[in-house]
Amino acid sequence: MTQRVYNFNPGPAILPQEVLIKVQKELLNYGGTGMSVLEISHRAKEYEAINNDAISLFRKLMGLDETYKVLFLGGGASSQFAMIPMNLLPKDKTAAYVETGAWAEKAIKEAKKFGKVHIAGSSKDKNHSYIPQLDSLDIPSDSVYLHITSNNTIFGTQWHQFPKASVSLVCDMSSDILSRRLDFKSFSLIYAGAQKNLGPAGVTVVIIKDDLLAKCSDTSPVIFNFKTHAAENSLYNTPPVFAVYMVKLVLEWIVERGGLAAIEKENRAKQSCIYDAVDHNTDFYRGHSEKDSRSWMNLTFRLPSEALEEKFAKESKAAGFIGLKGHRSVGGIRVSLYNAMSLEGAEKLAEFMQKYRKAN
Amino acid sequence: MTQRVYNFNPGPAILPQEVLIKVQKELLNYGGTGMSVLEISHRAKEYEAINNDAISLFRKLMGLDETYKVLFLGGGASSQFAMIPMNLLPKDKTAAYVETGAWAEKAIKEAKKFGKVHIAGSSKDKNHSYIPQLDSLDIPSDSVYLHITSNNTIFGTQWHQFPKASVSLVCDMSSDILSRRLDFKSFSLIYAGAQKNLGPAGVTVVIIKDDLLAKCSDTSPVIFNFKTHAAENSLYNTPPVFAVYMVKLVLEWIVERGGLAAIEKENRAKQSCIYDAVDHNTDFYRGHSEKDSRSWMNLTFRLPSEALEEKFAKESKAAGFIGLKGHRSVGGIRVSLYNAMSLEGAEKLAEFMQKYRKAN
Repeated sequence: MTQRVYNFNPGPAILPQEVLIKVQKELLNYGGTGMSVLEISHRAKEYEAINNDAISLFRKLMGLDETYKVLFLGGGASSQFAMIPMNLLPKDKTAAYVETGAWAEKAIKEAKKFGKVHIAGSSKDKNHSYIPQLDSLDIPSDSVYLHITSNNTIFGTQWHQFPKASVSLVCDMSSDILSRRLDFKSFSLIYAGAQKNLGPAGVTVVIIKDDLLAKCSDTSPVIFNFKTHAAENSLYNTPPVFAVYMVKLVLEWIVERGGLAAIEKENRAKQSCIYDAVDHNTDFYRGHSEKDSRSWMNLTFRLPSEALEEKFAKESKAAGFIGLKGHRSVGGIRVSLYNAMSLEGAEKLAEFMQKYRKAN
Repeated sequence: MTQRVYNFNPGPAILPQEVLIKVQKELLNYGGTGMSVLEISHRAKEYEAINNDAISLFRKLMGLDETYKVLFLGGGASSQFAMIPMNLLPKDKTAAYVETGAWAEKAIKEAKKFGKVHIAGSSKDKNHSYIPQLDSLDIPSDSVYLHITSNNTIFGTQWHQFPKASVSLVCDMSSDILSRRLDFKSFSLIYAGAQKNLGPAGVTVVIIKDDLLAKCSDTSPVIFNFKTHAAENSLYNTPPVFAVYMVKLVLEWIVERGGLAAIEKENRAKQSCIYDAVDHNTDFYRGHSEKDSRSWMNLTFRLPSEALEEKFAKESKAAGFIGLKGHRSVGGIRVSLYNAMSLEGAEKLAEFMQKYRKAN
């Protein structure tokens, strides 16, 4: 059997090995039912428990009460780019968006199909290498919401402070949810595809505050209305049972490790390893993002030449570090350090970076 | 370890044990990658192979060529109730729907949000216990499509012949896809949630003919436009990787068993067992559906009293037969006999039915 590699893929991404082993162990017989979790009914009490446990764990880890509804939906976070304005942005109203990368641009494109979009800030002028200063944001007070992308997977930037807006804050946290402590109560809607920090691809969590939920339009299709799913506790139609089950296991794994404080501490140490290797070799490695906007989840940097970048991707892969080739919009190298990546993995990669620098 | 039960759940449902064992075996290391299939990138060559193999297997099993695009989408078949009219039904045009059960009713409700709906036929007058006669259908020649539900999971009816309509035929095959040979080429769009005959909950297959695809509206959100997913081979956004992987394994399992001819033969024998037990005891068991509309997938019948029905559900469960309680819209008992249920399972249940009849 091949050894496990260090998986630095940007998503779908590494999962905690303890969780995978548990899934494997109970795959043929879930909780003594005589059925696989892949075969149980979403109306069975076993799935009801999975669903409710996952909801409680989100609230517990994020410090949210029952005025926040936790929904598990299919279709990916890209569906939310459309569902959010479909529910919340009437044709004659304006929503504010901060344009910090490719995903924000896609969200903006979908929102324009429903109502008016006001760009509250943008980092497009410098290939999305920074997060706009909070005091530079232009947020019309009559915006129905302000949409931001907390972490930009492709460009490697991350919001480290959040706007204290008078309008509802809507946040795509797909690539950094539950990676650090945050005042989650300052958001009215948080959404995230699972395939980075939460579980496998196939489920999107939407966490929506009651007062925003009440504003959802009733003219949208039933299946795309947040109220439908909130009223039915995500059981209006068949949910992606297995993906929700895995999310529950990942949340339990976070709790066992000490919750978000412990996760944040480890993530801080992990990103330090890599950025230190960059900053101690600035004649060779060149970070894409401005320092105060650097992402802890996706670390992007260039090398002196494209030939050296290609060689880096190739040699690192041969050494057991997978998924380091940067996205074509930035080039170079991208190191994704989601929760499930160990500090050891980051340290080993930092060592590789030092060695590679010396050898080239 | 508890023994495996006979799982007659209506969906999510039984999966082939051979497939589950394979999934379990390779769960920690997919194809020597050193990663779980739950962790691999949807841009990796390993997933590209899964995606393309699953597409080829659908075409092979259904006798379709490349003029049919096979898409793997999230969000469940219920999302298709909205996506189909969103793509194909302009506000001032009419689509024809045959109303044969709860799912058809939901599809109709969503379609009315987009354009005009004409009810081409309905079985509502007799609690959806039959499929309307083909020559009774009233299909306006200017309908943009005719929508039918090939099998009605809740009521236990199934279309055994299909209308030769001059308009595009759109079919929800969620609960009987690949259960029998059909002239799949007579359909312009076929869709199905995976969780009955194809795999676990979490992916919906949409098979759409090029000429209908070309008619999809470009005003809908990018993520809900069939053209988006067809152009990107279902890789526009992150697909539900694991669910597609499992669908591929289930399709391979069907091929190994001899394809649809063999599957149909086994399904014919399975339903015979149960309906024979009903028909030989008509003083005790009473089928809900008219004989020529009987479903091979979901077999619904009543007992002399609700007390006897409850006792049946309870005693059958204790005997290892799971998921037999009927839906509240019909009451009584529902036996779901999807492809993965063995003939042995159906035979054992028929024996139980005989014994229960004698004892009560």
